[in-house]
Amino acid sequence: MNTTLNNTLQPATEQQVLTSEAFLAHWQGHRSLTRRVIDTFPEKELFSYSIGGMRPFAELAMEMVNMALPGIYGVATSAWKVPGKPDGFVLATPATKEELLQLWDEVTETVNNLWQQVEPGRFQQNDVAFGLYEGPVYSTIFYFIDNEIHHRGQGYVYLRSLGIEPPPFWER
Amino acid sequence: MNTTLNNTLQPATEQQVLTSEAFLAHWQGHRSLTRRVIDTFPEKELFSYSIGGMRPFAELAMEMVNMALPGIYGVATSAWKVPGKPDGFVLATPATKEELLQLWDEVTETVNNLWQQVEPGRFQQNDVAFGLYEGPVYSTIFYFIDNEIHHRGQGYVYLRSLGIEPPPFWER
Repeated sequence: MNTTLNNTLQPATEQQVLTSEAFLAHWQGHRSLTRRVIDTFPEKELFSYSIGGMRPFAELAMEMVNMALPGIYGVATSAWKVPGKPDGFVLATPATKEELLQLWDEVTETVNNLWQQVEPGRFQQNDVAFGLYEGPVYSTIFYFIDNEIHHRGQGYVYLRSLGIEPPPFWER
Repeated sequence: MNTTLNNTLQPATEQQVLTSEAFLAHWQGHRSLTRRVIDTFPEKELFSYSIGGMRPFAELAMEMVNMALPGIYGVATSAWKVPGKPDGFVLATPATKEELLQLWDEVTETVNNLWQQVEPGRFQQNDVAFGLYEGPVYSTIFYFIDNEIHHRGQGYVYLRSLGIEPPPFWER
């Protein structure tokens, strides 16, 4: 009987760190901070300001959107694309901050909704994200989050060099 | 009997995402990339180059060191300090890149060693990190990692604005 149980339950001695719910909260906490960073940029500089030939922050934010949106569909359904769109479909950068923030909020809602459909055991499954990146699904989601933190940190430098105080990093 | 089991084992339906071992690998993967970023800076600029009044990258790296070192002692022993040092003890910035990299490697080894001493269930325990930040221990470790990614991303802007190609973000 113990053997059967060990196949369906995690032994307490194998330390598990993170629940699905806490994982979502962690991601959305970061997305919430990134939203505030977008909002902190002046309209013009959001779409045009650059250092060292890097992309303006609106483009960095769109990289996050174009990773998170097909990404959460991939996590939930194993099809790494936005339904009804071709593979590799990329959302174009909106023309205004208001539209970018609205798009951001739509992605936030889609992530929350699809997260509830993630099947038990899915995070540990191996998959090839976007048909390119192989690994357990949880590690792909960490990549989305880490990539967002990485580029958002770059946005902090843009803001500081514009003389603008960014939102506190520790507030989610 | 089921009740007893549910107290000591995680039900498979409550999705667990990350094992202790994968969590360590995730952190050390990031630390390995940060080490390469430190190494990519020219000696002089590592300690002096700044944008927008921000700290040079050596100072940002030392923030990571002074978080990770007492941090891993706190995770493993509940005492958020370097043994034999007073509370709030801060390691001074080394004078050369070589010494900084050596210090970085010592912290890497300490993290690996102390991680093995982390008791089962510790990641879920509530604790007050550094006597200041309350939360489950796993979330404190995520803060260390996220803070490192955040500041490392800023180092990427410093390097780009110096005309230097940073190491690829996706290589750990």
